[in-house]
Amino acid sequence: MKKVDFFMLLLCLIAASFLVSADPPTCPADLGGKCSDSDDWQGDFFPEIPKIKYEGPASKNPLAYRWYNAEEEILGKKMKDWFRFSVAFWHTFRGTGGDPFGAATKYWPWEDGTNSVSMAKRRMRANFEFLKKLGVDWWCFHDRDIAPDGTTLEESNKNLDEVIELAKELQKGSKIRPLWGTAQLFLHPRYMHGGATSSEVGVYAYAAAQVKKAMEVTHYLGGENYVFWGGREGYQTLLNTDMGRELDHLARFFEAAVAYKKKIGFKGTLLIEPKPQEPTKHQYDWDAATAANFLRKYGLIDEFKLNIECNHATLSGHTCHHELETARLNGLLGNIDANTGDAQTGWDTDQFLTDVGEATMVMMSVIKNGGIAPGGFNFDAKLRRESTDVEDLFIAHISGMDTMARGLRNAVKILEEGSLNELVRKRYSTWDSELGKQIEEGKADFEYLEKKAKEFGEPKVSSAKQELAEMIFQSAM
Amino acid sequence: MKKVDFFMLLLCLIAASFLVSADPPTCPADLGGKCSDSDDWQGDFFPEIPKIKYEGPASKNPLAYRWYNAEEEILGKKMKDWFRFSVAFWHTFRGTGGDPFGAATKYWPWEDGTNSVSMAKRRMRANFEFLKKLGVDWWCFHDRDIAPDGTTLEESNKNLDEVIELAKELQKGSKIRPLWGTAQLFLHPRYMHGGATSSEVGVYAYAAAQVKKAMEVTHYLGGENYVFWGGREGYQTLLNTDMGRELDHLARFFEAAVAYKKKIGFKGTLLIEPKPQEPTKHQYDWDAATAANFLRKYGLIDEFKLNIECNHATLSGHTCHHELETARLNGLLGNIDANTGDAQTGWDTDQFLTDVGEATMVMMSVIKNGGIAPGGFNFDAKLRRESTDVEDLFIAHISGMDTMARGLRNAVKILEEGSLNELVRKRYSTWDSELGKQIEEGKADFEYLEKKAKEFGEPKVSSAKQELAEMIFQSAM
Amino acid sequence: MKKVDFFMLLLCLIAASFLVSADPPTCPADLGGKCSDSDDWQGDFFPEIPKIKYEGPASKNPLAYRWYNAEEEILGKKMKDWFRFSVAFWHTFRGTGGDPFGAATKYWPWEDGTNSVSMAKRRMRANFEFLKKLGVDWWCFHDRDIAPDGTTLEESNKNLDEVIELAKELQKGSKIRPLWGTAQLFLHPRYMHGGATSSEVGVYAYAAAQVKKAMEVTHYLGGENYVFWGGREGYQTLLNTDMGRELDHLARFFEAAVAYKKKIGFKGTLLIEPKPQEPTKHQYDWDAATAANFLRKYGLIDEFKLNIECNHATLSGHTCHHELETARLNGLLGNIDANTGDAQTGWDTDQFLTDVGEATMVMMSVIKNGGIAPGGFNFDAKLRRESTDVEDLFIAHISGMDTMARGLRNAVKILEEGSLNELVRKRYSTWDSELGKQIEEGKADFEYLEKKAKEFGEPKVSSAKQELAEMIFQSAM
Amino acid sequence: MKKVDFFMLLLCLIAASFLVSADPPTCPADLGGKCSDSDDWQGDFFPEIPKIKYEGPASKNPLAYRWYNAEEEILGKKMKDWFRFSVAFWHTFRGTGGDPFGAATKYWPWEDGTNSVSMAKRRMRANFEFLKKLGVDWWCFHDRDIAPDGTTLEESNKNLDEVIELAKELQKGSKIRPLWGTAQLFLHPRYMHGGATSSEVGVYAYAAAQVKKAMEVTHYLGGENYVFWGGREGYQTLLNTDMGRELDHLARFFEAAVAYKKKIGFKGTLLIEPKPQEPTKHQYDWDAATAANFLRKYGLIDEFKLNIECNHATLSGHTCHHELETARLNGLLGNIDANTGDAQTGWDTDQFLTDVGEATMVMMSVIKNGGIAPGGFNFDAKLRRESTDVEDLFIAHISGMDTMARGLRNAVKILEEGSLNELVRKRYSTWDSELGKQIEEGKADFEYLEKKAKEFGEPKVSSAKQELAEMIFQSAM
Repeated sequence: MKKVDFFMLLLCLIAASFLVSADPPTCPADLGGKCSDSDDWQGDFFPEIPKIKYEGPASKNPLAYRWYNAEEEILGKKMKDWFRFSVAFWHTFRGTGGDPFGAATKYWPWEDGTNSVSMAKRRMRANFEFLKKLGVDWWCFHDRDIAPDGTTLEESNKNLDEVIELAKELQKGSKIRPLWGTAQLFLHPRYMHGGATSSEVGVYAYAAAQVKKAMEVTHYLGGENYVFWGGREGYQTLLNTDMGRELDHLARFFEAAVAYKKKIGFKGTLLIEPKPQEPTKHQYDWDAATAANFLRKYGLIDEFKLNIECNHATLSGHTCHHELETARLNGLLGNIDANTGDAQTGWDTDQFLTDVGEATMVMMSVIKNGGIAPGGFNFDAKLRRESTDVEDLFIAHISGMDTMARGLRNAVKILEEGSLNELVRKRYSTWDSELGKQIEEGKADFEYLEKKAKEFGEPKVSSAKQELAEMIFQSAM
Repeated sequence: MKKVDFFMLLLCLIAASFLVSADPPTCPADLGGKCSDSDDWQGDFFPEIPKIKYEGPASKNPLAYRWYNAEEEILGKKMKDWFRFSVAFWHTFRGTGGDPFGAATKYWPWEDGTNSVSMAKRRMRANFEFLKKLGVDWWCFHDRDIAPDGTTLEESNKNLDEVIELAKELQKGSKIRPLWGTAQLFLHPRYMHGGATSSEVGVYAYAAAQVKKAMEVTHYLGGENYVFWGGREGYQTLLNTDMGRELDHLARFFEAAVAYKKKIGFKGTLLIEPKPQEPTKHQYDWDAATAANFLRKYGLIDEFKLNIECNHATLSGHTCHHELETARLNGLLGNIDANTGDAQTGWDTDQFLTDVGEATMVMMSVIKNGGIAPGGFNFDAKLRRESTDVEDLFIAHISGMDTMARGLRNAVKILEEGSLNELVRKRYSTWDSELGKQIEEGKADFEYLEKKAKEFGEPKVSSAKQELAEMIFQSAM
Repeated sequence: MKKVDFFMLLLCLIAASFLVSADPPTCPADLGGKCSDSDDWQGDFFPEIPKIKYEGPASKNPLAYRWYNAEEEILGKKMKDWFRFSVAFWHTFRGTGGDPFGAATKYWPWEDGTNSVSMAKRRMRANFEFLKKLGVDWWCFHDRDIAPDGTTLEESNKNLDEVIELAKELQKGSKIRPLWGTAQLFLHPRYMHGGATSSEVGVYAYAAAQVKKAMEVTHYLGGENYVFWGGREGYQTLLNTDMGRELDHLARFFEAAVAYKKKIGFKGTLLIEPKPQEPTKHQYDWDAATAANFLRKYGLIDEFKLNIECNHATLSGHTCHHELETARLNGLLGNIDANTGDAQTGWDTDQFLTDVGEATMVMMSVIKNGGIAPGGFNFDAKLRRESTDVEDLFIAHISGMDTMARGLRNAVKILEEGSLNELVRKRYSTWDSELGKQIEEGKADFEYLEKKAKEFGEPKVSSAKQELAEMIFQSAM
Repeated sequence: MKKVDFFMLLLCLIAASFLVSADPPTCPADLGGKCSDSDDWQGDFFPEIPKIKYEGPASKNPLAYRWYNAEEEILGKKMKDWFRFSVAFWHTFRGTGGDPFGAATKYWPWEDGTNSVSMAKRRMRANFEFLKKLGVDWWCFHDRDIAPDGTTLEESNKNLDEVIELAKELQKGSKIRPLWGTAQLFLHPRYMHGGATSSEVGVYAYAAAQVKKAMEVTHYLGGENYVFWGGREGYQTLLNTDMGRELDHLARFFEAAVAYKKKIGFKGTLLIEPKPQEPTKHQYDWDAATAANFLRKYGLIDEFKLNIECNHATLSGHTCHHELETARLNGLLGNIDANTGDAQTGWDTDQFLTDVGEATMVMMSVIKNGGIAPGGFNFDAKLRRESTDVEDLFIAHISGMDTMARGLRNAVKILEEGSLNELVRKRYSTWDSELGKQIEEGKADFEYLEKKAKEFGEPKVSSAKQELAEMIFQSAM
């Protein structure tokens, strides 16, 4: 039996365990799309979706922006430059709607039922049309979601090159560029024990080869960042794990990545994306502080920044605002994966953020950071499994962009109104004293401080005014 | 294009999104198994695994029982009759190792890469060999994991019938029977909004047809129970959900199931399996008390019992012990899904229980309940994704059975030693008074109680002795 | 040594473990209040706080309403009648700011440092002034927070009577009434094992006497409801607990309460307030469904309704919206404890709700319920420990009331705009068919449904449109 | 009115809000203790408790060790030297049983109801008798739990000195020493915004003075470590917080502590005790990695180690084992607070650890670390609120010590049996190759690795054998 046939059997075996027999799915009714199985695709992918325009808050049109007005200037910068929104190829074009208990639910009209290179190229064309209709200039990808795995590394690379060439061509004459690229080191069974932290040295080498290539193509397309999300870089139980050795391997891997980045002249930022757990029980890049500690321990602190994802933040027990501020204060705020989770669900739901309050706090951090470029806001967010219309893809992105835009507008309103900042300034005003200065300059030892404490007697302690702060904040919503 | 071809394309499209090209997987090295792709399977499925025997606690053999001794009598009942262990077909024979971020990792040597009826039959033979080698008399199944979906309901039923006939034949001359059967109403995309609670009336009808058939075949095979797990009977957001209407539909569905059970003369117990969430954000059978409320509200309390799963218990914020006792006190303890979760992971990990303390508490409830028959202990538990040797299937079951056996032995030890029961008895001893009796009989009204309270003055309140109770409990481990 | 002296020593012993020596606390600076330790209080309690008025959304005044306009009619009802806001005496007048790691932080100027009856009366006067300045007609209380415990039940009752007389007098000529009263059965060490579910029969009697009295005084003051919150009605570990016996005792207790209510002619609603845990590990009234099951099991379902607290809802793993709808669908929605928790903190933080989105969902349920009277919205919410100015008490309540008012306005907007309801109606439209009707009327058995399923073939399943629903919802904020 | 009188009033005011009138509590029945209110205490504190001895696993005596045998040598070290058990003064002698919803429940016979210096001294004598009866050589304390706060810093220091002198005297002729001391910077209202991170500069100075003194007395008593637990060093909401400035202040504070330690010649280890939250919503020393990042960022990594508390570990989403290993791998494992939490309760329950499996994992880390000295195992654990007998204090400690002793015995058994280590070694065996070595030495760049990956082809990936590892582990219990 030939290798390739065997693979087809295996593929279907596994498909079978996820899938079930079904009538051909109906195409999304509202759009009247025609399901095609031919190899070349004629005409538009989204024929019934107009170019999405700004219509203002009074609009009732779900296919229009109400708050996001790309060219509008806010605090001296265009809205589009504040956000640098990016579409995540994997969720939007490869999301199947499958979950641990359910098979795929999405049957987009342009899909032909294969994982061929030609299908990959068709999908890439859909991506560019999608970006243009949304008015978004950035996209993000994993190597393996844009081009199919081959049976060898060489074949996989060849497949990737072919799709990359098309992307390069499609980019021409537009401002569209990858916000970042990354290598998918978690889906294939070879990575079940990790990539850089696999118990198998051959997998480490394979992962290195895959990252090398992904970096090259990101660079080639003019990508501005490169991301590491170590979904499998962690452990399930310490009983069978040598955590010390695995962490050392991870450091070696990052060192090699830094060296290679420099070698090929890639100027983009390297980003680590923290997540506490899932799929592994414990991921080594648990949260911003954990990732920072790792980078400091191994002398890599100046070579990386962080990609903070809001849903990952909340899974780690922090607010998104906290993780952004932690990254910022460690000089590591590089990019934002703009999504949200369900506060009562213990796994990553990757929802489009629609909470204006949370968006406002995110933007307060971004303003403090002076913006986020060369990073941006990547929509690492997906349709709910039960959302199966093509227009849902647009609605979700529009809703997410409008929410962030409201967040920016509110953050500016709060900033300009001034009373929240004033509340904070006043709260710390005793530190603007001589003694405060001495302490902050490291000139106050314990003996001096004891002397001062005795002089002062019982210190006065003011109200923290949390309810007032919340009232001011909410009133700006 | 023909329907069937189209389906193959679709199937592969979806496979492709979960899967990736790979060399043929190596067969499990330790067992020297030979991967086969032919349709008929020669010889044993587990040639290198012996019949698992009891060797006692001193044994170092991972393929032997150290605590589970099937024929040994404990409190007047054989161990095998206390437990009535059951293998879950779906996890053991259809578990792929896939997770939300990863493709399948299991490539058992007997799989040929198809989802054909002949493959389904081969798999059923493997199941029976597995049961016999383990020395287990019960198995559980969903309709769709034992036989492939067809393109129509009729075809699916036909496929099922063919496999069921084989199972019937394999059962002959043995004591092997289904502990329970159930219908898989969650994997297929048609069930994405639920089965009995779908927003589409046609899906409700389809689900009814599927349950009808699953009940029939369970009955035909001599199954002793029938389970409803409503993984999709719930909602993702109340914004788009008519919860009241959905709950009413669920009640109608259960009423029809009860009527049909009686019509066909099926004497087995109908069981609801509570779970708080996942895949839906909120499942209607959240926990034992929620399911009991539903059953009472709709007048179904005498027609159903509960199948308590330990991992579901902990996900709902309770201990497994609590859920078992809640079921027992409501007269609803029907079956146990013996597994465990990870206390720090917010999703169902379905691990084999290896915590002897938890097993002991479970068995304390079961002893109080006078046993669990006609229910049993179903191993709704799966290998970790990274456990890929055939022998791991055996090791996991042996470990789970031994843990439960230790639990039984410890529970008996605690019972016979007596000091824990004595501690509880003593704690409530003031209730064994005249006043206690009057209250318990509903004869003490507030005026009488106030009079008593004034007579008593400040009541004496004794120590709860929790640390002593824990010491007694732990010493028995 | 006399009993009373001994008590004083004990009291101070315990005080000492919570407290520490300190200079006299400074009075709230902003208000220029003068700390008094004399027994009679002259003049206003809140001299610098004006009567809080509605000034509209443009106002920058933290001591004004921006959205709550008591007399404004919405959907045919005045805002004040939609809400029936209530101040929780315990949080607002007895909250100390203490937490498990910290001593009290609140030193209100009207407190004299005693727990005397005269201090209790002064505090009650402050309560009425507070209600009037806020423009709120309702208040809630525990027996022991409005009047000091005595050394005997008789003395405690006498203390209570004295304060109640004052409250009665203060109510005269106003519309102010208790929204509900309740008995504090959790703070005193006698209740450490529970009240109705104590392991000591004498404590059960004592609790009954206390509830009897609390019901009487609630009735006397014209209270409209009576609440049971069973903070200690639960367990810490099943190892030392007879859960079945305790639940039976709880049922006997509620039966006696119902009988006594009828005997004294109290027409108010009896309410159970579910909470999952804290202070006990497991509370018997875990959530709405659990409480409903208990009521049904013991035949009490027609005698009680539920008081849903949002923070308790989220602690139990549900949204507040879910708990409200569960209560409503079980015919049990009686009252709302309007507060919120911190989604990332595993204990009850009892914060004033400031999330307008959540408030909107709450009001969508209330509108569906046709209002909440004779229940209302009780602010079971407290200042943060670090909020120590008298004005913070006002700011917090204003912020909470305004948030609820925005919720009502938004809910009405969504209702009147109509597209969300239309989305839901459309989603379930297949149920408005002949078959849907047959099923809902219980006329469709499995055989008929199977026949239908076969006729239909594969059912069409539409998108759930969750993102669109969220967009519509958010746009109304 | 005099300051001191005012304070008494305040003290009682607050007492009153926590407390309630009660008959004098009965003394613990089992021990027949006589409650005393006189100032001098005659005879033994624990007259009916014998010196706790090792009686072996067969003993039924709750007042004996069954597994902890202090002088027994294990792996070349006496059990007492492996553990260096310590009693936490605050829980054992100042724990009141109070909780957020309940007043104190503990009335030990030696307490006289005052917070006087003489009472503090009597309590210290009780501590030493307790240590001797248990056979424990170490104790831990906060400054304010061993001696009462005065009205000024000077008076507080004087009180402390007086008690310290007594402790010094009681230590004489024994091996008893403080395992560590610490300053209580969380209970007093002055610390409501933090100590080192307070928004008030005067509080920072006060905290410094308090730490200075606490270090001095720890040094004076021969303490071997000094701990910082920053319960209030964190924030409630970022809206009113300048996190960057607060973190800088914390660093200045630690720098000053290091300088002062050196100045006074204190050779003990400085330890930071991480905790994620409670009482603040977010504590700056969230977990081991967060604390390590802080120490590295501010150049303090060589001056501190960590005190890992198991209950804090689990609250942060990690296992205790994970936190110990994280500390160890960062060279920071200094001390262990041996306790446990409730996996289903979102706050610190500080229970005595009775889970032998967890104790075994803890000891596996400690053995890897070559022991924990000069740190030890401090029982930062308390009786349940409802445990009110004096003997419960002993039972709880005995149970905790026996559990740890079983953990040590099991860990050694696993180590000596060898198959778990062998499983891990084998799992990583491909790293013991030439390529593995090159990578670990940093000599394998991406180009070389890609070349290797191409040579290798698809890497073989072995089973992780988690179930086997768990079976081996559990069999040793």
